[in-house]
Amino acid sequence: MKRANEETTENDNKKRRTAEEHNKTNVPVPVHHKILPSIFGILPIDDSINVISKFLEGHLGTPNIEIEGKLGKIMDNNTKDRVYLPVQSETVLAADFRGIRFVSDMTMDQHRNYNQILNKLVNDGNKPNVKTAFFSYRHIHQIDSFYQVPGHKEKLRLSTDKTNSQVINFIKKVNIGHLNIYLPNSPLDLRISINIEEKMDQSLIKDVEANYERQKDRLSYKSHALQIDLTQVHEPNTDKKIHELEIELDSQLLNHEKLKLKDKQTHEQSQYYNILTLFMNSLRMLARSG
Amino acid sequence: MKRANEETTENDNKKRRTAEEHNKTNVPVPVHHKILPSIFGILPIDDSINVISKFLEGHLGTPNIEIEGKLGKIMDNNTKDRVYLPVQSETVLAADFRGIRFVSDMTMDQHRNYNQILNKLVNDGNKPNVKTAFFSYRHIHQIDSFYQVPGHKEKLRLSTDKTNSQVINFIKKVNIGHLNIYLPNSPLDLRISINIEEKMDQSLIKDVEANYERQKDRLSYKSHALQIDLTQVHEPNTDKKIHELEIELDSQLLNHEKLKLKDKQTHEQSQYYNILTLFMNSLRMLARSG
Repeated sequence: MKRANEETTENDNKKRRTAEEHNKTNVPVPVHHKILPSIFGILPIDDSINVISKFLEGHLGTPNIEIEGKLGKIMDNNTKDRVYLPVQSETVLAADFRGIRFVSDMTMDQHRNYNQILNKLVNDGNKPNVKTAFFSYRHIHQIDSFYQVPGHKEKLRLSTDKTNSQVINFIKKVNIGHLNIYLPNSPLDLRISINIEEKMDQSLIKDVEANYERQKDRLSYKSHALQIDLTQVHEPNTDKKIHELEIELDSQLLNHEKLKLKDKQTHEQSQYYNILTLFMNSLRMLARSG
Repeated sequence: MKRANEETTENDNKKRRTAEEHNKTNVPVPVHHKILPSIFGILPIDDSINVISKFLEGHLGTPNIEIEGKLGKIMDNNTKDRVYLPVQSETVLAADFRGIRFVSDMTMDQHRNYNQILNKLVNDGNKPNVKTAFFSYRHIHQIDSFYQVPGHKEKLRLSTDKTNSQVINFIKKVNIGHLNIYLPNSPLDLRISINIEEKMDQSLIKDVEANYERQKDRLSYKSHALQIDLTQVHEPNTDKKIHELEIELDSQLLNHEKLKLKDKQTHEQSQYYNILTLFMNSLRMLARSG
């Protein structure tokens, strides 16, 4: 086996010895060792974030792209229970993992807990010299009506503000793909989704009746790079309420930072991986608090 | 649902608006948004490192404890191939995962590559103002002889320096436990082990012959908090050579920092999680380079 350049090491050792000997005559100074993030001095990008980055690749430039992360449970279709894998830490499931579905729901207690956590963030973020993110929020009462229109595979969604009946938007939401992330040490798992939200013309539903509608009571917390929506969904004709928490990434900002990454001149300033880390760590910490 | 304190948010929004309006009269200043590690402003401890920390708990104070991480492959006993799990990112396997074994070996090319990477670290670490860790190294030619002695379940190991026949140590190595870490995006997986290395009295083997011996050609790279051993193991009577890379953690230092963590006065200064992060990230980055 080959050794490293011996001379350099010897010289440096001599330098260190001299420094130590010199010190003996003075007051003893404890050697301060800074613990590095790795022997290479850098923090490696974590494996899950690498997978998410690859998953987003090729879609980021697409117009009207929506990137969102949801809290919920990965359910086993056979056992009707949360899926079990023989692992004891976070992992992204394989794309061809069959027999599972993601249920974007939680208990009312969990929902209430998230409400408190997020309200605290809004309050804390307004104090001077805090380390948490700045959040603004809105309370939205919204009705989503779904229409089946010939020539469109996906149902079209008309969202109106319940308080003044004004149309918020009319879109077709097409799913591009999902990533299911199993969190065996958290009460909730994660799903990252890419969708295209295409704006549609309202004349399409002039003479069409809605198939069904959903009422949404939503607290929307907005911060730089992301928006957190805590929503209670009520489907009429049932008493059941679904409780959802999702984080939507600012996909335009992310794409902008991705382009910086590709350019040698701007590579160093790119916030691409920092934004993905903020997104993923926020989802992880919220899932742990569930 | 409950809203966060509205007044605070309104006040802050006013402040922000005022700042923006004021700015209109002067040169436009781009708003600088620092991307936080999470919405809570802190970096969560990663899930694998949490599992390792729990695994070490209760053993750290034990005398003569050895904590090491090895590169290799988790093999499926049935397929005789590397194990397959339907996941696409790092995960720690469950403790009761059956039908697998960890093979601490690599190709000669991988070994040569690690030799170059580690030699470069030694050279780089000696340059002024570098970000990588400082490493010293030694080249060791060692013979390990194994003895079966009545009253001891484990074989006793006598290590001697091949160059001068001096005894390096005589120990009984008892394994306490393993953690297998599956890395589907790396050519090699990881195993973290806890062992107790108990020093034995040489009189025990006065009239005993060694069962077998192993020759080790080892490059040992020492840094603060850890030591990396790159070893070629040769078992006599066979032509086969095994190539190993392992990182040993300074368990006394880790225990010292763990105790700091438990004391309110020293909690903030503790390097416990930083040392585990250095250990794990170094193993991850080396596994990726394999």
